[in-house]
Amino acid sequence: MWQQYEIQLQTRRRGFHLVTEEIVSRLPGLTDISVGLMHVFIQHTSASLTINENADPTVRSDFEAVLNRLVPEDEPYYQHTLEGSDDLPAHIKASLLGPSLTIPVTNGRLNLGTWQGIYLCEHRDCGGSRRLVVTLQGG
Amino acid sequence: MWQQYEIQLQTRRRGFHLVTEEIVSRLPGLTDISVGLMHVFIQHTSASLTINENADPTVRSDFEAVLNRLVPEDEPYYQHTLEGSDDLPAHIKASLLGPSLTIPVTNGRLNLGTWQGIYLCEHRDCGGSRRLVVTLQGG
Amino acid sequence: MWQQYEIQLQTRRRGFHLVTEEIVSRLPGLTDISVGLMHVFIQHTSASLTINENADPTVRSDFEAVLNRLVPEDEPYYQHTLEGSDDLPAHIKASLLGPSLTIPVTNGRLNLGTWQGIYLCEHRDCGGSRRLVVTLQGG
Repeated sequence: MWQQYEIQLQTRRRGFHLVTEEIVSRLPGLTDISVGLMHVFIQHTSASLTINENADPTVRSDFEAVLNRLVPEDEPYYQHTLEGSDDLPAHIKASLLGPSLTIPVTNGRLNLGTWQGIYLCEHRDCGGSRRLVVTLQGG
Repeated sequence: MWQQYEIQLQTRRRGFHLVTEEIVSRLPGLTDISVGLMHVFIQHTSASLTINENADPTVRSDFEAVLNRLVPEDEPYYQHTLEGSDDLPAHIKASLLGPSLTIPVTNGRLNLGTWQGIYLCEHRDCGGSRRLVVTLQGG
Repeated sequence: MWQQYEIQLQTRRRGFHLVTEEIVSRLPGLTDISVGLMHVFIQHTSASLTINENADPTVRSDFEAVLNRLVPEDEPYYQHTLEGSDDLPAHIKASLLGPSLTIPVTNGRLNLGTWQGIYLCEHRDCGGSRRLVVTLQGG
């Protein structure tokens, strides 16, 4: 009924990255679930997870460009600046997009729409490898 | 313990729309759950779900106005422009608001606050009918 | 397997506040769960929940400053203005950050990253005490 996995994602550069396959390939128990939910949680405060288009890579580069304008670096009023100019914006972006996703599982597969994929949103210049906790439940 | 429903929402125009009743009316098993959770997931990348005020309709029109200013159309730096000027902003708005909601179920009902309702956030000019996957669990 | 709690948080001033301990201390059954999930839901439309850095308090004051610039008060195009100039921006901020969190539970504890804490995001000037519904499940 319950399975839990820790997954260490490959290090990626700042930006938005499709990681659906990297996650699903680490969940051997997924195929045993006919109806259930997958919860994936990122244990960091400067990277996040979202779901968006899995086809055209310019969607992902536009995400980076838009988020950088929504939450710019080096605003004179920022106080939390000791860890670099990318750090405070990374925290804000992480909360706007969120630290977790819950996705329905149907007949042993993630029940995503045709064009949906899981994005790792890496908001730091050098964020390193990111750790996920995946919790699967179902019957 | 587990129930899963596919729901096709009525087509709605671009904007923010209250859909609590349209969803709940399709969940005959909801009343059987004394303690549990409802998870609702939209299988699209240019529409989203959120919870906000269920009373004054100007909250919903203000949502549309504010989101259009936060993520404007036709920015010269956008690269993903082939599907129309509303498309890339729709993807960004969808990720800012998110593709799913999880709501507590108590005594056979969604345990929402007095003023809370579920919004379908339709970010495309002509998005068509949107498909949801609702997963109910509880005891 | 299922536990549900209503928690009334202390009244806090407008801004971002760490509430991890205030929540966990009200969940006596948490230690009984070896693998599971905690879902926490805020029953309001002008306050929200997020996860972010639990250490430097300037992260939280910067959150308030950035969100106030992203969604300013007193824009001339706002229609929902009867409840005060902080009200409509509070609704928008609440949906951008979201009304709920789902966090993995492992060996009787929230499986948060080292630097992660739960923030109450109080978007109103005088929001009063906020009510949460916490649903715990697991085995």
